[in-house]
Amino acid sequence: MKISELSAATDVPVATLKYYLREGLLPPGEALSRTSAAYGDAHVERVRLIRALTSVGGLSLATTRQVLEVIGDPGTSRVDVLGAAQRALLGEDFVAGPEGDDPDEGGNPPSRARAWLTEAGWQVHPHDPVIDDLDTAWAACDAAGLGLDEARMTQYADAVLRIARVDVDSVPPDAAGAVRQVVLGTVLVDRVLAPLRRLAQQHIAVSESD
Amino acid sequence: MKISELSAATDVPVATLKYYLREGLLPPGEALSRTSAAYGDAHVERVRLIRALTSVGGLSLATTRQVLEVIGDPGTSRVDVLGAAQRALLGEDFVAGPEGDDPDEGGNPPSRARAWLTEAGWQVHPHDPVIDDLDTAWAACDAAGLGLDEARMTQYADAVLRIARVDVDSVPPDAAGAVRQVVLGTVLVDRVLAPLRRLAQQHIAVSESD
Repeated sequence: MKISELSAATDVPVATLKYYLREGLLPPGEALSRTSAAYGDAHVERVRLIRALTSVGGLSLATTRQVLEVIGDPGTSRVDVLGAAQRALLGEDFVAGPEGDDPDEGGNPPSRARAWLTEAGWQVHPHDPVIDDLDTAWAACDAAGLGLDEARMTQYADAVLRIARVDVDSVPPDAAGAVRQVVLGTVLVDRVLAPLRRLAQQHIAVSESD
Repeated sequence: MKISELSAATDVPVATLKYYLREGLLPPGEALSRTSAAYGDAHVERVRLIRALTSVGGLSLATTRQVLEVIGDPGTSRVDVLGAAQRALLGEDFVAGPEGDDPDEGGNPPSRARAWLTEAGWQVHPHDPVIDDLDTAWAACDAAGLGLDEARMTQYADAVLRIARVDVDSVPPDAAGAVRQVVLGTVLVDRVLAPLRRLAQQHIAVSESD
């Protein structure tokens, strides 16, 4: 199909498609002449993925490019896809530290979340910035006097592991599908879980007051 | 204590405290003269709760007033406190419909979330706007091709019920403490659960790749 047809199929303006081509987000079509090229279904899929990552996922074009590079590498494992997608969502150029490097050394304050994760035996990268997010959120709960101690964190974690089990089981085997599922699933399913939690609280409270 | 001391104890400017007094959010102190009044520990607690609801919870002063009115009524049950706090978070003047009123009649489109909730046997108010939030989030997952069907929703719901169980068990018996726990716990614990979910995904993916 011509670029105008690719535009019609994806509902993305031709000017935007040309921008994706210039920036290398979209691979070039098959050259038909010096000024026109043919595009296929793979281009339609790629454009839809770019739009989903940028509009729904809220990723920048630079981060989207990094995620697409991970997909493009056929040797990428499921864990690497998951890691790349998670880091893309954090919007950080996260570089893994050397093995055995102690993150609590070198001036970093000791992390309550990291200590709890170690105690719980969770296999996560000790430098993952998501751990800092957990520390920040946990400290905010403390400041608000919510009484969220290690025991209650472990109760939440047991339930969250079940959610993550469903998440991981629903990741498709192909890399593009996996990135879509992880990036969009992380953002969009959070939005499902929040109202579900309020309804579950209501259901439990109403059931007990009967 | 004088209003200047109440200001020092709560780190809230005197002008803001006077605004709370004028708006009825803060009950008047004991009049000492025509221009001064004495405030007690209950005022300190009330100011801290107002600040927590407005700054952390993101509630407007009008909504905060509604929440405080629920606390002030000694006949308010745990379920009513929960409901008032949840509705306050939605920022809507939610009025319960008459018993037996069918929310799918009267021009409303049929709700997939409501049908699923009925099937799951959850006791929630059929007009609760949180159900609309769930519908919107579910539709967004569908639009993104995430394959979130009723079976997977039920798997998430089973896990979320465990989270809500922990939530409800941690609600203190006094109304003020309950509102603090529900409003702040809903907002702040969501921020804990999100990074926890990403770490749980990582733990499961890494454990399986060993």
